[in-house]
Amino acid sequence: MTPRADVLTRVEAVNLGLSTFADALRAQDAPVVQVDWRPPAGGDATMLDVLTRLWGRHGRVVGAANADAVARIEGCSPRAVTVAAASSVVPGLEDGVLLHSGPPIAWERVCDPQRRALLAAVVFEGWAASRAEAASLLERGEITLAPGNEHDHVGPMTGVCSPSMPVWVVEDGARRAFSTLNEGPGNTLWFGVGDDEAVSRLRFFRDDLGPRLARMLEHRGPIDVFGLAAQGLNMGDELHMRSQATGNLLLRELAASIAVVGGEEAARFIAGNHHFFLNLTMAASKCASLALDGCLGSSVVSLISRNGVEVGVQLAGMPGRWFVAPAATVDDALLRGGHTADDAARDIGDSAVIECIGLGGMALAAAPVVASFFGGNAAAAAARTELMAQICAARSERFTLANRDHVGTPVGIDARLVAELDVTPQITTGVLHGHAGTGQIGAGVAHQPVAPFRAAITALAAELDGD
Amino acid sequence: MTPRADVLTRVEAVNLGLSTFADALRAQDAPVVQVDWRPPAGGDATMLDVLTRLWGRHGRVVGAANADAVARIEGCSPRAVTVAAASSVVPGLEDGVLLHSGPPIAWERVCDPQRRALLAAVVFEGWAASRAEAASLLERGEITLAPGNEHDHVGPMTGVCSPSMPVWVVEDGARRAFSTLNEGPGNTLWFGVGDDEAVSRLRFFRDDLGPRLARMLEHRGPIDVFGLAAQGLNMGDELHMRSQATGNLLLRELAASIAVVGGEEAARFIAGNHHFFLNLTMAASKCASLALDGCLGSSVVSLISRNGVEVGVQLAGMPGRWFVAPAATVDDALLRGGHTADDAARDIGDSAVIECIGLGGMALAAAPVVASFFGGNAAAAAARTELMAQICAARSERFTLANRDHVGTPVGIDARLVAELDVTPQITTGVLHGHAGTGQIGAGVAHQPVAPFRAAITALAAELDGD
Repeated sequence: MTPRADVLTRVEAVNLGLSTFADALRAQDAPVVQVDWRPPAGGDATMLDVLTRLWGRHGRVVGAANADAVARIEGCSPRAVTVAAASSVVPGLEDGVLLHSGPPIAWERVCDPQRRALLAAVVFEGWAASRAEAASLLERGEITLAPGNEHDHVGPMTGVCSPSMPVWVVEDGARRAFSTLNEGPGNTLWFGVGDDEAVSRLRFFRDDLGPRLARMLEHRGPIDVFGLAAQGLNMGDELHMRSQATGNLLLRELAASIAVVGGEEAARFIAGNHHFFLNLTMAASKCASLALDGCLGSSVVSLISRNGVEVGVQLAGMPGRWFVAPAATVDDALLRGGHTADDAARDIGDSAVIECIGLGGMALAAAPVVASFFGGNAAAAAARTELMAQICAARSERFTLANRDHVGTPVGIDARLVAELDVTPQITTGVLHGHAGTGQIGAGVAHQPVAPFRAAITALAAELDGD
Repeated sequence: MTPRADVLTRVEAVNLGLSTFADALRAQDAPVVQVDWRPPAGGDATMLDVLTRLWGRHGRVVGAANADAVARIEGCSPRAVTVAAASSVVPGLEDGVLLHSGPPIAWERVCDPQRRALLAAVVFEGWAASRAEAASLLERGEITLAPGNEHDHVGPMTGVCSPSMPVWVVEDGARRAFSTLNEGPGNTLWFGVGDDEAVSRLRFFRDDLGPRLARMLEHRGPIDVFGLAAQGLNMGDELHMRSQATGNLLLRELAASIAVVGGEEAARFIAGNHHFFLNLTMAASKCASLALDGCLGSSVVSLISRNGVEVGVQLAGMPGRWFVAPAATVDDALLRGGHTADDAARDIGDSAVIECIGLGGMALAAAPVVASFFGGNAAAAAARTELMAQICAARSERFTLANRDHVGTPVGIDARLVAELDVTPQITTGVLHGHAGTGQIGAGVAHQPVAPFRAAITALAAELDGD
């Protein structure tokens, strides 16, 4: 480009950016450049010993395993192949079994919103005629609760899946993962209500939307989920709290099939639900998470999942092993008028698997609009992504940010770095009412507790010591 | 938000941003802060006199008229109401008339790509059996050429519209404007080729796509064009060179109607054409431009339009009066491999009406991806928007940029500022081959010549002097 006199004025644009950021910093009363001076792991001697082993004598093994883990995440390209009744595809989802989000939990300890969703699912399945009767069945243990994650299924928020619900089937080679269809707004199960209208909607899913989606996918052929996500990331989505643009990309993929298959109500639902793509991102992320099986020695986080009571974390190096702690409160959030933090349920949902593969809270820089949910602006959103880069093993080559000059999103959360820096993954999430059964009351960022990451790397170090 | 230790690390994000921008500045070898020191209007004495009158004794009248003009642009909300045969809705588009982009031009002077498009349109209409015969008709003046803009019609690039082509009809109250359906990629008329396949596509538009769109809009109801554009602006579109996200928003609006109306080929075309929304933005922008009728005394630019030979500019204060100059060369562009600037046609198309209402080149900050077409990055894109703010009367309240903390795009190009600062509107545009009939060879930014803006304000000053 020939230098022109008018490019001189670009200096003004810089000044604008700077001033904005400076305001943001001032507004948050943030002091400057101290993070590197904090003692590692807050100076905890036991943790320092664990970290010394994991960076020291096991450093080479862990490093190689982590590089392998990142390569597996980045190399996994799940495609949406069909939509089918959960019972017909999800392993072990038999009659009398209900899946839920988060680590394993007994009925007595299930939080209020998840409880309501489970009761609605029992009614939907016809296993009980009323919610009271459903509660008896669950109390008596006549219905089995299982974490969706242990059945290759992930669900947002309450994350309930029952055998008759249609689910997305995504696959990469022989590896498959599943997620329910997103229910959208209202008194839905995922938001912890599950009223009669929500149960009717599930029947519409089962009888109309699900079968039509299956026919659309059959007509269209498989859809590359992360391919769409990578585009949506440069259309203002971070793919967890906001998937609007990516949902529209899905609609573009399906448009010709919609014309062929028809179904006004189904098309209207797909187009009208801003979160419709969320569950696809989740299923694909779960698929990538499953690809980490066998990365022995890796401290990369393969799973973060919450049930509103506890958060469970898993490492690529120890597949299937939960490290749990009380679920976070979502205090970095915007609540709807009249609601206070006391009303809020604790952090809930399987959706944090999204952050494990480099989207959601890792990719906040992509979605300045989302920043308003935690009182921030575009610079604050970008800074959150950079913060997450501190605890990740790599930058994604698949998910890049045009508005950050094509830098990749942070990918491969290294539990060692989480423990060392005491910086935990931030999950962009909705907030449910904790007890009134009124559904979503806000959205924001859930900062995960450090305890399960500490416990996980302690176990990993012990396992590596024993080898 | 509670201050947390980790917010300290935001400083790194600042550093990243700074460094990137500094690199961009260095790469462009740009000196710093001199723009305010240049003599106004390059020191031209005649122009200084005109500007002195327009800012001085006419300043109040012009300022009030410009504020009115901006209010009219911002207050205009065109809705897409239907798609219909051009002859049935476009005033004066009778049998034997062809519309073209840009200011009026005689057949002998029409540039090569526009000539090819006109010949194809004659064949499409069945007025001639061959392009040679079509050329004879045009040479003999048996077909009338007219600028689309004088018939409330705008078309991208060659901008050809013939009576049987279906056109978008947008309206705001009693005010209507029109644009053809975007033809998409290939050897199309808008790209200055118009081969037999392109003519077949026009028949598909006339017989299938157009009527189906009309039925879809009837089923859906009118669509707020700028409402969608405002959303798309925060999904990576600047709405001139890139309309992908906004096109998907349109698809979302139409999804249920697609299911009802059917038509696989039509749906596939709408979904597959990345520029499908462009012509809607143009028609809506033209509608807003028409709303400027009666802003007497205003120096706000109501129209910039090019035919590949000349650019014509109009001011809100002198509606219908063209100020012309040779069309710009699009030298700030990325050309496809093997092509050089010598191959490129001059700047062409009615689409610059988009820049007149605050989108396209005004909104480059929204679309960092587009920046790559002129060798820039996100910071360069943002700087281009700030440069345009220098020559605009206001910031849009309708079109705001989330990635710039919701600042509005510059709106209401003030021809006084253009002449004074010698900074002309930048139009994001495609580049056509100038003579080989091979269609689009690139895309970039066309910097308009200053001459027509100078001529326009000279005439405006004279008119105000006479009052």
